[in-house]
Amino acid sequence: MRELLVIGIGPGHPDQITVQAVRALNRVDVFFFIDKGESKAGLNGARDEILHRHVTTPRYRIVNIPEPARDRSRSLTQGRYRTAVRDWREARAEFIATAIATELGEDEVGAFLVWGDPSVYDSTLGILDGILAQNALAFEYSVIPGVTSVQALAAAHRIPLNRVGEPIHITPARRIADGLPEGLDSTVVMLDPEFTAADLDDPTLTVFWGAYLSTADEAVIAGPLPDVADAIVEARTRLRDQHGWIMDTYLLRRDPAVQ
Amino acid sequence: MRELLVIGIGPGHPDQITVQAVRALNRVDVFFFIDKGESKAGLNGARDEILHRHVTTPRYRIVNIPEPARDRSRSLTQGRYRTAVRDWREARAEFIATAIATELGEDEVGAFLVWGDPSVYDSTLGILDGILAQNALAFEYSVIPGVTSVQALAAAHRIPLNRVGEPIHITPARRIADGLPEGLDSTVVMLDPEFTAADLDDPTLTVFWGAYLSTADEAVIAGPLPDVADAIVEARTRLRDQHGWIMDTYLLRRDPAVQ
Ligand SMILES: C[S@@+](CC[C@H](N)C(=O)[O-])C[C@H]1O[C@@H](n2cnc3c(N)ncnc32)[C@H](O)[C@@H]1O
Ligand SMILES: C[S@@+](CC[C@H](N)C(=O)[O-])C[C@H]1O[C@@H](n2cnc3c(N)ncnc32)[C@H](O)[C@@H]1O
Repeated sequence: MRELLVIGIGPGHPDQITVQAVRALNRVDVFFFIDKGESKAGLNGARDEILHRHVTTPRYRIVNIPEPARDRSRSLTQGRYRTAVRDWREARAEFIATAIATELGEDEVGAFLVWGDPSVYDSTLGILDGILAQNALAFEYSVIPGVTSVQALAAAHRIPLNRVGEPIHITPARRIADGLPEGLDSTVVMLDPEFTAADLDDPTLTVFWGAYLSTADEAVIAGPLPDVADAIVEARTRLRDQHGWIMDTYLLRRDPAVQ
Repeated sequence: MRELLVIGIGPGHPDQITVQAVRALNRVDVFFFIDKGESKAGLNGARDEILHRHVTTPRYRIVNIPEPARDRSRSLTQGRYRTAVRDWREARAEFIATAIATELGEDEVGAFLVWGDPSVYDSTLGILDGILAQNALAFEYSVIPGVTSVQALAAAHRIPLNRVGEPIHITPARRIADGLPEGLDSTVVMLDPEFTAADLDDPTLTVFWGAYLSTADEAVIAGPLPDVADAIVEARTRLRDQHGWIMDTYLLRRDPAVQ
């Protein structure tokens, strides 16, 4: 039976991968890489460095899987956004199923490397489940967890994500366009094409922002949102121009002191 | 200047620690262990195994810090709960400040090992900030992130934590006593002295439960909540009796199909 490993490789530092994941990397015959195009060159570099640094006797093959195009326009409604994501996932699943069927031998081990942890805003697990549900291709698979970019954000700022007795909330940026989610005093924001929080006119909020977390290019800014929002917008623009891409995330929280 | 490292050691498996954390362990002169008593014997065992397995040239000292007593009665109101936690933290902070001042040399490296990740329901960072704020003791400190038990839960069940476009929510059990938090279709529950979800009479919920995640004793149960709640309560009781302690967490989610 074919075996697939979905391996969390952490948020950026080549050593921010677990010893368990390193062991798993060393069992792999075929790495399936999904080509994210030039804009994510930084990510591919980190991935290559991980293999270079941690695979002790390289005997693996690499199979590049092209990624279908996707409608990323910001003006999509929630419903259309879901449809766009679904269509894109279906196309991607077909490419991936074909790659596994044709490139991985019956008794070989294949792997997908996932940025951060596979359970956090990543579609790999959904795609593999979808392929299995179609019953055309059989494989076993397991998941090796990784450090998320949320953990890297908290570590860089040396802050807990929760206050005593309070929840931890992580959300895509589109859900904070009108402020913190109802009933919550703090949230981590991911997947923000711009710095959505800049438009929140809320003097009670404090922000802890980080880009390229855990990498050599890590940049962090923290402070009362009204005081530092401009600096974050400026830093994002400058860094994105400089690197050609950006990955950032931030914690927004209502400070009881200012309330 | 004294240096302190707060190191996330992952949720249970001695190899579910990052290479970065392993490097950090090998720089440490003094490990500060907070004595959690016999009930957490399993945790101490995992910690000892991590040092044994990953510190290549052991030259460290171990300093055990006693833990103050704490009011853990379930009947506390939210307000009293906060006060109890605050008092306990203050007492603990004093013990810890004394240990650092007396046991760590001026140019030495000390470390606190934190289960999972230091930013998730752990008080170490708050305590260190509190000590620094008192200005009586100076040190530098940094945080090395780890894999959380939430990631281990998702990996064991091979599920994403989020649905497309939806948030990830993690909450202490006391907040789900009346059902899923307002406006949310899914939440991870931690710090549950019993299995609070058993009292939720909600046929639309699916549960993914895991105990001793990532360890050799890992146990998982998943299914529609009404179908598996009894089995989870039974397993918790049996396993807690067997091991003398239990650590478990679960994802509750409303299944669109059943809604
Ligand atoms: C598709 S999600 C993948 C998340 C990943 N699975 C994880 O566990 O962190 C991509 C988002 O993660 C965040 N992100 C990932 N890596 C990051 C990094 N090194 N620094 C800052 N943000 C990062 C950004 O918010 C980005 O939009
Ligand atoms: C004080 S919190 C610490 C959480 C930790 N910092 C982390 O990142 O996972 C303890 C809670 O974490 C969860 N937990 C920690 N380790 C676990 C494990 N190995 N299996 C299941 N749950 C675990 C349980 O819900 C437990 O009540």
